Amino acid sequence: MSKKLTTREIDYSKWYNELVVKAGLAENSGVRGCMVIKPYGYAIWEKMQAELDRMFKETGHENAYFPLFIPKSYLSKEAAHVEGFAKECAVVTHYRLKNAEDGSGIVVDPDAKLEEELIVRPTSETIIWDTYRKWIESYRDLPLLINQWANVVRWEMRTRLFLRTAEFLWQEGHTAHATKSEAIKESETILDVYAEFAENYMAMPVIKGLKTESERFAGAVETYCIEGLMQDGKALQAGTSHFLGQNFAKAFDVKFTSKEGKQEYVWATSWGVSTRLMGALVMTHSDDLGLVLPPNLAPIQVVIVPIHRTEEQLEQISEKAEEIVKKLRKKRISVKFDDRTAFKPGWKFAEYELKGVPLRIAMGPRDLENGTVEVARRDNLEKNIVSQEKIENYLEDTLEEIQQNLFDKALKYRENHITEVNTFEEFKDVLENTGGFVSAHWDGTIATEEKIKELTKATIRCVPLNNKIEEGKCVFTGAKSTQRVLFAKAY
Amino acid sequence: MSKKLTTREIDYSKWYNELVVKAGLAENSGVRGCMVIKPYGYAIWEKMQAELDRMFKETGHENAYFPLFIPKSYLSKEAAHVEGFAKECAVVTHYRLKNAEDGSGIVVDPDAKLEEELIVRPTSETIIWDTYRKWIESYRDLPLLINQWANVVRWEMRTRLFLRTAEFLWQEGHTAHATKSEAIKESETILDVYAEFAENYMAMPVIKGLKTESERFAGAVETYCIEGLMQDGKALQAGTSHFLGQNFAKAFDVKFTSKEGKQEYVWATSWGVSTRLMGALVMTHSDDLGLVLPPNLAPIQVVIVPIHRTEEQLEQISEKAEEIVKKLRKKRISVKFDDRTAFKPGWKFAEYELKGVPLRIAMGPRDLENGTVEVARRDNLEKNIVSQEKIENYLEDTLEEIQQNLFDKALKYRENHITEVNTFEEFKDVLENTGGFVSAHWDGTIATEEKIKELTKATIRCVPLNNKIEEGKCVFTGAKSTQRVLFAKAY
Repeated sequence: MSKKLTTREIDYSKWYNELVVKAGLAENSGVRGCMVIKPYGYAIWEKMQAELDRMFKETGHENAYFPLFIPKSYLSKEAAHVEGFAKECAVVTHYRLKNAEDGSGIVVDPDAKLEEELIVRPTSETIIWDTYRKWIESYRDLPLLINQWANVVRWEMRTRLFLRTAEFLWQEGHTAHATKSEAIKESETILDVYAEFAENYMAMPVIKGLKTESERFAGAVETYCIEGLMQDGKALQAGTSHFLGQNFAKAFDVKFTSKEGKQEYVWATSWGVSTRLMGALVMTHSDDLGLVLPPNLAPIQVVIVPIHRTEEQLEQISEKAEEIVKKLRKKRISVKFDDRTAFKPGWKFAEYELKGVPLRIAMGPRDLENGTVEVARRDNLEKNIVSQEKIENYLEDTLEEIQQNLFDKALKYRENHITEVNTFEEFKDVLENTGGFVSAHWDGTIATEEKIKELTKATIRCVPLNNKIEEGKCVFTGAKSTQRVLFAKAY
Repeated sequence: MSKKLTTREIDYSKWYNELVVKAGLAENSGVRGCMVIKPYGYAIWEKMQAELDRMFKETGHENAYFPLFIPKSYLSKEAAHVEGFAKECAVVTHYRLKNAEDGSGIVVDPDAKLEEELIVRPTSETIIWDTYRKWIESYRDLPLLINQWANVVRWEMRTRLFLRTAEFLWQEGHTAHATKSEAIKESETILDVYAEFAENYMAMPVIKGLKTESERFAGAVETYCIEGLMQDGKALQAGTSHFLGQNFAKAFDVKFTSKEGKQEYVWATSWGVSTRLMGALVMTHSDDLGLVLPPNLAPIQVVIVPIHRTEEQLEQISEKAEEIVKKLRKKRISVKFDDRTAFKPGWKFAEYELKGVPLRIAMGPRDLENGTVEVARRDNLEKNIVSQEKIENYLEDTLEEIQQNLFDKALKYRENHITEVNTFEEFKDVLENTGGFVSAHWDGTIATEEKIKELTKATIRCVPLNNKIEEGKCVFTGAKSTQRVLFAKAY
């Protein structure tokens, strides 16, 4: 398989698809819309999971696990929720197969029909709130701060690896609180966790905001989100945190006895990020040579490639390389020494470029003589000859630099791609020719939002938190508006 | 809810069910046969996962993720496999719900019928081998050593929390090799990993052995297993590792080019342990007061309970307690200081006994005066007054002692419950009155195995590895036999 990718300029979408497959992140499976996450992709996802899980636990959350299946009747209990999720779900109707009587193979056994169909969870609010009714009696049982790592299924018609798949992996937090303000605070705390993770680990700057009514989660009172900006100027919703009010508590009759002895409905939040983040990570930093991974999430942070002609040279290089490996491991830097002889150095260089390994060390006979190595940075492709002495400190510092550099670069790109416009002509022009976020006044109606989407394919990504209040006129209808919102085409 | 449990003597099965629920490990959900794993139970499972995952990675395995759904036709490709798994599976037949025309709620949309039904994976050999065909071309691609952490569904009719549930969590390893001997070695390596985990972390002694033909995994050439013994004298299969021969490679046409340039079928293994281990853990060590957890898997290893009358006393105790907490954390011992004032010390003692926390420290005003604490061991219920000085070393040593003590106790129980018998009368007598493993000669036929099962409910748990070869006569038919096998009633 050629490692050469279609360039971003020629076809960004094709570049993405090729990169995900060729770098060994994921591929389509024989099951429509379901992907296989390959070992290298899964290793990145594991790093994401580990950091997020730590952050959830540090903010007082515990993990648990709820059933994969949701009885059909549960899904119906919250009116808005069922509208949002019933349309694209996998439905289990039978629980047995049998040999066909005509010997043609195995068929569904008609005698094994379920009395009530089961839905493969598209999200777990309903099954979890059915459980919380049994767990919550008094204010002493609150807050209940639970997260689950799970697979979910949404029967998407058009799928793309990581960005939109029928089955995906995610975490979903579901919390219960005694007061409204505490629940809102929880939604915001989690939004901050998500933003911190996106910026400090993924090196992806995000805008924190609120969704408009039409983009809200089905069943939520308010949906907070973080929005990233990809290199092609399209936005990507990277995480959402929902304040659910008392909607699910009422639908599932979850009440608690307050300190004052009164029966009250519980307040709720839910929040999630998914393997979609993998797509965001790829599209934020990678280039035409392959992946560019931020060191904080790279499964291999440093790779050492020996350059040699003779066995003896390889032995000498190996000895030095192993010393470096040891020093790096002590610093908890993950390092691989690739001494495979079946592959040439040039092939390896291309391979690790494709896989986005942040730092590549090459060591040849001349380096041995001079006590040096060649260090190549994946982010800016710079090469430097560096002394082997204290190389571990140099590498550690450079990894930090790369992490920061990737963030700065992405931030600069985003700052150059938020454009304030005041007319619909400008709006369309920016969207078409500049891309990115368009900051515009909007009259606050769903009708206008829909009309704009119809005409331009742009949606309101969010109303930024701490937005500036200013008088203005809706970019489309001219009606009065008090603040700008961010429009963009989006994944 | 009363914390008092039915005693094991009165009703072992009831004791188990009550304990799992009351200790906060798991409970039944509104979905038939599917459990909710509660935070405390999940925390133990996470510890199990972390250790196993580390051990898999240390033996060269990587994680990946494959689809939840398996097309019906895939399941049919390996003849023995489909016989074993088609009978109890969840079948997805539709991909959409809609509002009923008569307004009675939501119904399955008949227009959204799948062309081919999808099975919710009961195990993933088929979907994975369909993928491996694309990944394996040459001997250079081998071995392929992959593990997945996932949920699976088997439509069991009689379910019990952790031991047998429709949905359960597990890991499943699937490896591909160039040679038969390498694949067999892999099965054995994993069996050793499982045994090491069971004995060193769960403190559960296990017997390593081979399954007989009738108890083999559907599609395997050979099934290795580890068998534990529960306190009620019943055996429990705690993990299996299968040598699959070339069965799946042939069914899915997975060939590789050997070093000699020949096309050959790949050799395979698969292996798994599941949340069933949670049941085994509970039933190996716990008592009538509640859980008894081995320190190596306890989410909380040490709990500190203050005994105080006044606010001032609590403050003084807290100061000392926080010092101890710090020292323990430095040693990576997980510790909780329970200073909740809404609960009395007596209530807390019972709570942590129920939850199996290995060590409980009580600190009262007199302890402050004397510079001591009271340390209570959960395993043998001994209490000791210990000096606060270097308490962290004392606690660390005691945790190790508890870990060892639990294993020794379980081992002694098992050694007392392997009985050699030479007649069928003895066989029945031991099974009825002593319980445990019955070591007996068997003629090697499925017919005899089935007849014995029918008459006694005992199955052959395994043919122990490194079994002694000795001449004998089948305990049932009197036919010639060359070795003893282990029978038992089992979970």
